[in-house]
Amino acid sequence: MNYILKDENALYYECGYSSDNALYLKCGSEAFFITDSRYTVEAEEKVTQAEVITSPNLIKTVRKLMKKAKIKKLSFDPKEWSVGAFEALSAKSGILFRQKPDFSHKKRIIKHDHELEILATAAKLGRKAFQRLEQEIDTHGFGEDEYRLTYTAKSILSDFGRYELSFDPIVAINANAAKPHALPTDTRLQKGGLLLVDAGLKYKRYCSDRTRTVYAGKHFQFRTRQHFTKRKIQKAYDTVLKAHDHAIHKARSGMRAKKVDALTRDLIEKAGFGKYFVHSTGHGVGLDIHEMPYISSRSETIIEDGMVYTIEPGIYIPGAFGIRIEDMVAMVDGKAAVL
Amino acid sequence: MNYILKDENALYYECGYSSDNALYLKCGSEAFFITDSRYTVEAEEKVTQAEVITSPNLIKTVRKLMKKAKIKKLSFDPKEWSVGAFEALSAKSGILFRQKPDFSHKKRIIKHDHELEILATAAKLGRKAFQRLEQEIDTHGFGEDEYRLTYTAKSILSDFGRYELSFDPIVAINANAAKPHALPTDTRLQKGGLLLVDAGLKYKRYCSDRTRTVYAGKHFQFRTRQHFTKRKIQKAYDTVLKAHDHAIHKARSGMRAKKVDALTRDLIEKAGFGKYFVHSTGHGVGLDIHEMPYISSRSETIIEDGMVYTIEPGIYIPGAFGIRIEDMVAMVDGKAAVL
Repeated sequence: MNYILKDENALYYECGYSSDNALYLKCGSEAFFITDSRYTVEAEEKVTQAEVITSPNLIKTVRKLMKKAKIKKLSFDPKEWSVGAFEALSAKSGILFRQKPDFSHKKRIIKHDHELEILATAAKLGRKAFQRLEQEIDTHGFGEDEYRLTYTAKSILSDFGRYELSFDPIVAINANAAKPHALPTDTRLQKGGLLLVDAGLKYKRYCSDRTRTVYAGKHFQFRTRQHFTKRKIQKAYDTVLKAHDHAIHKARSGMRAKKVDALTRDLIEKAGFGKYFVHSTGHGVGLDIHEMPYISSRSETIIEDGMVYTIEPGIYIPGAFGIRIEDMVAMVDGKAAVL
Repeated sequence: MNYILKDENALYYECGYSSDNALYLKCGSEAFFITDSRYTVEAEEKVTQAEVITSPNLIKTVRKLMKKAKIKKLSFDPKEWSVGAFEALSAKSGILFRQKPDFSHKKRIIKHDHELEILATAAKLGRKAFQRLEQEIDTHGFGEDEYRLTYTAKSILSDFGRYELSFDPIVAINANAAKPHALPTDTRLQKGGLLLVDAGLKYKRYCSDRTRTVYAGKHFQFRTRQHFTKRKIQKAYDTVLKAHDHAIHKARSGMRAKKVDALTRDLIEKAGFGKYFVHSTGHGVGLDIHEMPYISSRSETIIEDGMVYTIEPGIYIPGAFGIRIEDMVAMVDGKAAVL
């Protein structure tokens, strides 16, 4: 099949390199990596299994290559291409363009062994960063606002600039934690407060992802057992933890993703918090922080060995508090192993 | 004219608010801001001159609104919409969709007075951050690698998490500075080295942008006069500085942008460095870090009062060194005022 890719991680997956201005074209048995002159030297060093072509106008060059190869059909991902860029690529080309949504994500849903190793290392580095962050918040975090705590999380997760982050960390106190994608505010961390931290880093371009919710008492600890002074928060916390553990213990290869989602959702619903669990149970993780499989109530995807995804149930009480506990798992020998 | 917008800064410009999942629809005299329930409360507080509508499926809601308003034509920016999203919006709608590339950027090319004030403040904060960064590098920067120096630049530019950054700072030593978009490496800053820093921050969502190139001698200083020990570097530096100053002094409202570009380029060419000035003289700055007007050798845009753009000539000798000096200017009373 002939296809064209534009997304950086899709390119990296095909040939081990990407730049922010590049295209990958697969034409029959030939493959081309087209980029501009700023990246020629690096591309020629690093691109594998594709011919590197330098051009000031990538799309024009791709059109020439397609013409030369006399291809009749080309697959592309309609999510990757803007209307404008696609028009430049396709207009009057005489080629039939086939829409393949999530083309690269579908190829990447089952991880190779070397990817599983990298993801395990990414998760380990993420876990260690949470340990360092715990110490830092315990000693210097009280009295600081969410802006500063987010900055601290960024500093430690990136190991002071050494690693890229999977995404901007979410560091949310009390009622702000009730927003699943909370942005920082000037709320300060006080003794007796609740703190939710959702953060990850990239190792060899692969993402880690982890969330803990903490009662900031005498000691600040990211462990999964937490003791809140308010009974309602404790009940919500214990429910989320139970749902999290239950899904990890019971997920099996061969199940549909919606069944894995139900492993957390049913438990949360039974505890009476159903309407406060406002998102899916999890998402695949790899080169992108959000990949397939999506662990949602509507996903018919069958879980298989080699898939890597998050288990992250949550309960969000608007105006009051939010709880989320998240780990990454890999499907190995039919079961979910925490990374 | 009826139009639809998707880009966050385009939305913010229309109605003073945006979220990462929102659309803005202008239908005759009516305007709608459509977002999902995570953002309803904030949107209703902050959106001006548009009706806020909450929906789990933005495009479906827009289609209903268009049908109800019986509009026949709708303008959109083909760069903002993916092929997939545009198809969902337009298929079988019976509406004529008109492509308006850079629709919002064209509206934003001349800044209002309140925008000029914000941009001046952003530039001032950026300048002050460079002063703090200078002290930090002078006292603790020698011996550190580009990763760590980039982290330091991020920390100081963001005022430790208080401001967002205009972009990831470029902090490049010696030969790495020869790449206009250098990524950090483990090269360390040594006495006698060259350091290029290109960085900016956002104030009230508007960007600052600034570059200095420094001879890291006894003292590390971002001032524009620099004394390199190597004659060739000094010649390149003085050429860039002269080109930078010349363009700022001679730019006038009424000139075409390509004429402003020539103000730096001619001088650099005369000095024999023409082929090492591999990019345009500058770009507009506003809500986006790269906006109109583009100060390039091909731009026919006529410069007018109220435009804000960078002047940033450079000379890049591959494998050896790179120089760039950049300031933001606003066109006021026919002339370029440095912000």
